[in-house]
Amino acid sequence: MVDVAAVTSTWDAVREQGPLVQCLTNIVVAPFTANVLLAVGAAPAMVDVPQEAGAFAGIASAVLVNLGTPYEATHGPMLEAARAAVFAGTPWVLDPVAVGALPVRTALARQLLEIGPTVVRANASEVLGLAGLGEGGRGVDAHDQAEAALPAAQDLLSWGVGAVAVSAAIDVIVADDRCVRLSGGAELMTRVTGVGCALGALVAAACAVTEDPLLAAVTATAGLCAAAELAQDAARGPGSFAVHLLDELALLDGDGLASHVRLSNGQAQARERPWLG
Amino acid sequence: MVDVAAVTSTWDAVREQGPLVQCLTNIVVAPFTANVLLAVGAAPAMVDVPQEAGAFAGIASAVLVNLGTPYEATHGPMLEAARAAVFAGTPWVLDPVAVGALPVRTALARQLLEIGPTVVRANASEVLGLAGLGEGGRGVDAHDQAEAALPAAQDLLSWGVGAVAVSAAIDVIVADDRCVRLSGGAELMTRVTGVGCALGALVAAACAVTEDPLLAAVTATAGLCAAAELAQDAARGPGSFAVHLLDELALLDGDGLASHVRLSNGQAQARERPWLG
Amino acid sequence: MVDVAAVTSTWDAVREQGPLVQCLTNIVVAPFTANVLLAVGAAPAMVDVPQEAGAFAGIASAVLVNLGTPYEATHGPMLEAARAAVFAGTPWVLDPVAVGALPVRTALARQLLEIGPTVVRANASEVLGLAGLGEGGRGVDAHDQAEAALPAAQDLLSWGVGAVAVSAAIDVIVADDRCVRLSGGAELMTRVTGVGCALGALVAAACAVTEDPLLAAVTATAGLCAAAELAQDAARGPGSFAVHLLDELALLDGDGLASHVRLSNGQAQARERPWLG
Repeated sequence: MVDVAAVTSTWDAVREQGPLVQCLTNIVVAPFTANVLLAVGAAPAMVDVPQEAGAFAGIASAVLVNLGTPYEATHGPMLEAARAAVFAGTPWVLDPVAVGALPVRTALARQLLEIGPTVVRANASEVLGLAGLGEGGRGVDAHDQAEAALPAAQDLLSWGVGAVAVSAAIDVIVADDRCVRLSGGAELMTRVTGVGCALGALVAAACAVTEDPLLAAVTATAGLCAAAELAQDAARGPGSFAVHLLDELALLDGDGLASHVRLSNGQAQARERPWLG
Repeated sequence: MVDVAAVTSTWDAVREQGPLVQCLTNIVVAPFTANVLLAVGAAPAMVDVPQEAGAFAGIASAVLVNLGTPYEATHGPMLEAARAAVFAGTPWVLDPVAVGALPVRTALARQLLEIGPTVVRANASEVLGLAGLGEGGRGVDAHDQAEAALPAAQDLLSWGVGAVAVSAAIDVIVADDRCVRLSGGAELMTRVTGVGCALGALVAAACAVTEDPLLAAVTATAGLCAAAELAQDAARGPGSFAVHLLDELALLDGDGLASHVRLSNGQAQARERPWLG
Repeated sequence: MVDVAAVTSTWDAVREQGPLVQCLTNIVVAPFTANVLLAVGAAPAMVDVPQEAGAFAGIASAVLVNLGTPYEATHGPMLEAARAAVFAGTPWVLDPVAVGALPVRTALARQLLEIGPTVVRANASEVLGLAGLGEGGRGVDAHDQAEAALPAAQDLLSWGVGAVAVSAAIDVIVADDRCVRLSGGAELMTRVTGVGCALGALVAAACAVTEDPLLAAVTATAGLCAAAELAQDAARGPGSFAVHLLDELALLDGDGLASHVRLSNGQAQARERPWLG
């Protein structure tokens, strides 16, 4: 069970503790990711070169590995940072962008998966691709796509991942025998590059302040969706939405978040008609 | 001949079809390029690593190759993506940033040119540099610079390029024996990084919805200039201009575009006093 | 002595001369850095590949080397650009991001230091790290951190650096026997990624229009702080602050700057109780 009070206090804990989040991420979203982390009070550090990546993972509060532009020079640092995070007991999040459809990142993601991410944050087709059950959304209907990825998410859990957050119109986050569904958010989230990737970074930040990876993923998702709802109300289009989103993330505290959280607890195993979960 | 109705229906076709545009571009403009594509309803994908770049070009609707930061690790993927695009019949756009003045990208641009871009989108000095007729604006007067690049643009056409779009205060776009001039736009376009590069991406998106590369380049240029005019009216400076530009791109449909298009059809060969075209 | 009139006329000179600033910088801040330079009327050029980096430094008005993401492929271009700048008499600025705590960039920074930067722009812990006197802020109290770095800054000057700008709540800039302290700025500067890195770029732009590196660093710092104060007054949070900051930088001229400059001249050697300087 995850309740709203746990979510709002975890959100406030990020603001109060200001975790240091090491990001190994892609060239498209690096600026927005850093700004989202700064907005919620966290401290981003993009440390992704050999030797430094592992050393830094030992002192960071959490680590994000995002495979959006997986240049060969970054493969080593990503593996190094993930291993150092595990060695140091630092939580780390894997965001397997476009895994399944593309060969280089899919092979790299499998190597990273073996190291044991605390949380995998992805859309449905990426979860299927990471589990080896799909190739980038093939056959997955848009309406129920998060639900269609639940068997694959369960596989990832059985391989040692702490929690899997499947992003969709209704987000589904699973861990052990728990499953939380979150509705909310805003259509404009899909019209700004890097919103999903920023969620991965927020999950990492939340992992730094709670031992429960499910709670971390739910908190990050709920906070981002709440800020997005507020931002969309004030936006004319995607440009102003992105600006408002950063402002709202900075203004949103636990009390403000409380009225926006729409979550339901369920069981991840109820797979036959999971959308009724 | 290109008429306004063709331009507005092509603009709407991008919004309706949402083409998947693979971008191999530079670290400075990657986020803005992605956001511009998302604003007009296209789907950006920055896939620029070896093996993946070529594979993805086969499924993308269009490909953009931009030479702004031509790291050695990206040369292979750029060539691979361009060749795969040609093999698959996918349109691809070359944006030869700063070619002519700088040796590495000039050599790379020549290799790419031989593969046969659907459209070259560049400023006058880059068109001269790509054709081997200049070195980055030398001797080209600011007032008539697009016109001064027309002989070089004709050379590129004779080598197999489908259309050449020369960006300037008055844009000139040439293909076979056609030449379209477009006025409009806003001074603040030059005060935000990546506006020209985003135009290259929009040309690629438009190439995905029309067989005519001239029409694609005219549509992208007209749409960006119209949105820029609207954005500048609402902006206090370059920061708010960039935000408004994304909003206006998202709000602008073919009907809205119609009243902003100021184009004249001419002949590319009328070179002696081309500004009277 | 630096007086306000010299600062405002240097600020205007940047706007009037529009220096070409070559930036070798990190993937997180490259877009914002380019936009800040464009806002003040300078022309950014991110030229950071081998062969091109050195050639371009010979024609640029100033060069910025920022170590935020020091990929191995960029080490050579950074050294090449710095050496070519010195050879051509072009001013160049070193921004040693996170130097001291991380091994790769610290070794690279020492190599760059030997080439002789015109200005080092950094926070206190980075100045300590660059001088070999600290490891990333260890033991440096936040309140007086710029002052605590003054002995290290003096060491850098004795090794041939033209000026050292230590960024903090109260900025301290030293050169030969001069020391200028600047107060002002806005809390939101720390909530947007790349504001400090953009200051490095502005210092480079100012170095292109004055022979005095101290004056250049003071002018860039004063201008950025003034624009930040104006931007914070209009901002709801970090998203809108970043937008307003670019607008205010573009709107701010020397006259507007004059009323915002709060500087005091002192002696760098007065180290025992430097905060009374």
